[in-house]
Order: sequence, then C-alpha cells, then structure tokens
Amino acid sequence: MQTSDVTVVGLGAMGVTIAGLFRANGMRVTVWNRSATRVAEEVARGALAAPDVASAFAASPVIVMCVSNDDAVDTILAAPGATLAGRTLIQLTTISPESARRGARWAREHDGHFLAGAIQAAPSQMGHPDTPVLVSGDRATWDAQRALLETLAGGLVYLGDDPAAAATMDLATLSWVYGAMIGFVHGATIAQKEGLDVATYGRIVRDIGPSFGAFFQHEGAVIQSGDFTVSESPLRISVDATARLLETARASGLSTEFPALAAGIFARAARAGLADREAAAIIEVMR
Amino acid sequence: MQTSDVTVVGLGAMGVTIAGLFRANGMRVTVWNRSATRVAEEVARGALAAPDVASAFAASPVIVMCVSNDDAVDTILAAPGATLAGRTLIQLTTISPESARRGARWAREHDGHFLAGAIQAAPSQMGHPDTPVLVSGDRATWDAQRALLETLAGGLVYLGDDPAAAATMDLATLSWVYGAMIGFVHGATIAQKEGLDVATYGRIVRDIGPSFGAFFQHEGAVIQSGDFTVSESPLRISVDATARLLETARASGLSTEFPALAAGIFARAARAGLADREAAAIIEVMR
Repeated sequence: MQTSDVTVVGLGAMGVTIAGLFRANGMRVTVWNRSATRVAEEVARGALAAPDVASAFAASPVIVMCVSNDDAVDTILAAPGATLAGRTLIQLTTISPESARRGARWAREHDGHFLAGAIQAAPSQMGHPDTPVLVSGDRATWDAQRALLETLAGGLVYLGDDPAAAATMDLATLSWVYGAMIGFVHGATIAQKEGLDVATYGRIVRDIGPSFGAFFQHEGAVIQSGDFTVSESPLRISVDATARLLETARASGLSTEFPALAAGIFARAARAGLADREAAAIIEVMR
Repeated sequence: MQTSDVTVVGLGAMGVTIAGLFRANGMRVTVWNRSATRVAEEVARGALAAPDVASAFAASPVIVMCVSNDDAVDTILAAPGATLAGRTLIQLTTISPESARRGARWAREHDGHFLAGAIQAAPSQMGHPDTPVLVSGDRATWDAQRALLETLAGGLVYLGDDPAAAATMDLATLSWVYGAMIGFVHGATIAQKEGLDVATYGRIVRDIGPSFGAFFQHEGAVIQSGDFTVSESPLRISVDATARLLETARASGLSTEFPALAAGIFARAARAGLADREAAAIIEVMR
C-alpha cells in the first residue's frame, strides 16, 4: 500500500535535508526515524509519519536511507516486517563496502532493487548542480532512479554494477582527504613557527589546489596504466623535498611525525630503485 | 659595466625556461652556468655568455638565479669577485629559509638588493597568467622588480619583508602536497584491491579538489584565529572516518602505515578532549 512518492529513513542533518529537497520538488514524503522528535518536525513541514520500519518501507516505491553507520543499517533491515516487494532501497548512509554487499543481498532476498550512494558533501552543499555523490548498483536500477537522485545532487558519478564500488571509492577519496589534512596541518605548524599568517597559507593552498588536482588525476592514470615512465614528476625530486621537510621539522623543533612518514616512504622508494620513475611509483612500496 | 637587461645564473630546465621568457619579452639576457654545454645552446638562441660569476653579476642590473639547492647558491655567492653594487639579486632557487636569510645578508653586504621567490610550478607551466610564485623581501625592491617577475609568472603572491617568508611558505605548502600525495596513493591501493579503476579515482579527486581547497582555506583561517569552535567539520567525524580507513586496511591486508598515522593523530586529539572542536584542532596534538 503505497501512499507517498518516496520514504526517507533517518532524520539526522542529512536526512532532514534530503526530505526537504524531495518536498521542494513536489514529492509526497513519508519519514521514519529512531527517535520521534525529528519526525514531528518533518510532519509539521508536510511529511507523512510511518509508525514503524515495515510501514515506512511499504509506503513508497523508493526508500532512501541515511542513518549513522553500518550497525544502524543492519538494525533497520532486521526490523519486523521490513520488505521491498518490487521497491527500491537507495542506501545513502556512509557504509563499508561489506555493508553495501549485504544491503544488495538483502534487497534481492526481499524481491527489491538496491543502489548505494556515497555523499561527498555537507548537508549545506546538497541540491546543487555540482554536489558530488558516487553511486553504484545494477544499471537498470540506476537508469530508473537517476532522475530522483539528481534532485539531491547534480554531480552524480555512476561507478557500475558492483554495489560496493561507491563505498570503496568513497574510502579511497577519504584517504586523499586525510592525507591532505594532515599535511596541511603540519604545514601550518611550519608557518606558525616562522611567524607567517596561517590564513594566507590556507588561501595559497586553495589557489594551487586545481593544478595539483590535475596532477593527482594524472598520477591516478599512471597507476592504472602500470607504466611509471616519467611524464610529469620524477620521484627523485620528491625524495629531496620530503627530506627537506623532515630536516626543517628537526631543525625547528617541530613534530617529525608526518614528515618522517613522507620522507621514509620516498627514501624507501629510492632504495627500491624507483628514483627515476614517475612520483606515483611510491605505490610499489606502499602496498 | 652592464651589457644586458638581465642575467640568468643556472641553466637547468627552469633556468633555460626563464631565460627564454625574458628573451621572448625583448630583453637582452646574459647567462652563466657551471657546465658549458647549456651556455652554448643559449648563446645560439641569442644570449650573451659570461666567462665567470663575477662577470655574470656585473653584466645586468638584475641577476636571476635558479640553481639546484642551498649548497649551489653558497658556492656561487662565494665566487671570486661576485658583487652587486646597486644591482638586485632575485633568488628563484628552491632554498631553505636560512639560505634566504643568508642571501639577503650577502646582498646587503655587497651594496645590493635581494628578493627570494619560490616557484610553485613546473617549467612547462611558467609564463602563464596564473603561474604561482611566492615572493618575499623588502617592499621597495618588490615594487621595483614586480613587472619583471610578472613576465615569468602571473600568479605572484608577495609575502612581505621577511626574505625567508617565501621559502617557509613553500615548505608549508609542500607539506600539504606530500600529505595529499601519500593519502592519494594509499587510496589507490584501496581502489586497486577492490578492482576499481584508479584513473576514475584520480578524476574524482580532481573534481572534489576545489571544494576541499575551500575547506583547507577555512581551516587555515581557523588555526590563525585560534578559535576552534565548530563552524565546518567537527573533529569527531574525522576520528570515525580515519578509524574506518585503518580498519579497512587491516581487513583488506593493505599497508596500515598511512592510515595508522592518520587514525592515531585524530584518536589522540579525541583523547585530548578535542572531539567537539573544529577538525583543524588536531594542530594541538601535532606540534
């Protein structure tokens, strides 16, 4: 018995934003949330409240879930009477690759369809033409749900049939994010130590970001090709640069934790005979 | 006895590019290089060859130096007869902050002027309207030489009187670059392990780069202000995300070297009571 166009399960900051974007697109929205306070707020904004998970799943042809983590997903899918019967579950929770595979299996066992999406944006960035969301799952379901997902995020990237692909790619990009974050903050300690303005440092990093984005794109292609012939940046340069970072930290009394890791990896790559390969060849000593 | 508009000392890939850009702007260029082969090539292109360092310095009102490192700079400045006498030395070698201070002192002692610039681009990127070069040194010299430097790079950022500022800021941004590089390559191991296309991963990183550039700019302003009240990203989220990176590496048999560092820093920050501060508060446990 479907009474709405879409059901939103989970009303954290992201779930509330998602429900609001669907309503703004003229859709009737059913909501369910573990605690009731947020549900009442959504009902006041025009949503229908489902009394339990089974009713929430039954209420719409598409169920969009965005809860806290793998465990919350497992609890909800194990709720009494939860089933799909021709419906589609779109999992937008930040989940592990394994949880994505479990979700796809659960959907199949309950005669439904499954897509997993990894949102790479904050709630305030949702609904824009360039909001990045990685999506994976079977192609027919992607084709059927693409327009609905575009109401949430214009920057959809479909990664193919493997339901775990979005979660895996999200983890990979998070690795880049946290490497950049830790390198950035160590750089801030260098700037502070020498009395430079850290806000200016942040602006410079933003300004050189696009050219380094192009560099990382290139290094990704290099790794995929397996051909590490120098085309952009010989690894040797990075051996020297990371050694300078480490020496500076030592000389200035700064923590050597991050530069020792970076210099260690590049020095190891040089010892492995990779100094005259493309910089991305460090992957040979990082597996 | 000045016989040209500018002297270029050092004819590596960058020095040759610099000499070419000056010639393309109609300037008469004198060159000097430790080994003679490159000098002959430049003379064939229209440059004047100086027989020694002292003559090279004497030949023009401005001397632009771009050699391999601090040691090469020291050797050249110690050459017999090298002096400035009202001339300006623009140091574009990648040097340490200490070498920048030594260079400024040397120029003062030789009655000349000094600027230090850190080129944040490859030779092929020189001469463009957005080529980034950080510059520092006394303001009057900057005002006098700005137009000449703009023929090399449109994206000049003047960082003030401290001659070491450009080198320090360059090191800080290198820290960001290498953090991003190591995080990126670890992410590539995740993608490879799960059979995803690493070239696609590189493209996704490039595409999300600008929004993370804005994030780093914000975190830099946060660090400069010293106010870590959450305005963008609570540190708690990063504790969970980096723990997931570490768990995934362990579960997949990937190297834990990078994610252990990242997860360790964020976990330490949480233990220090910073979980509900802005993410950049990790600087409190990274000094």
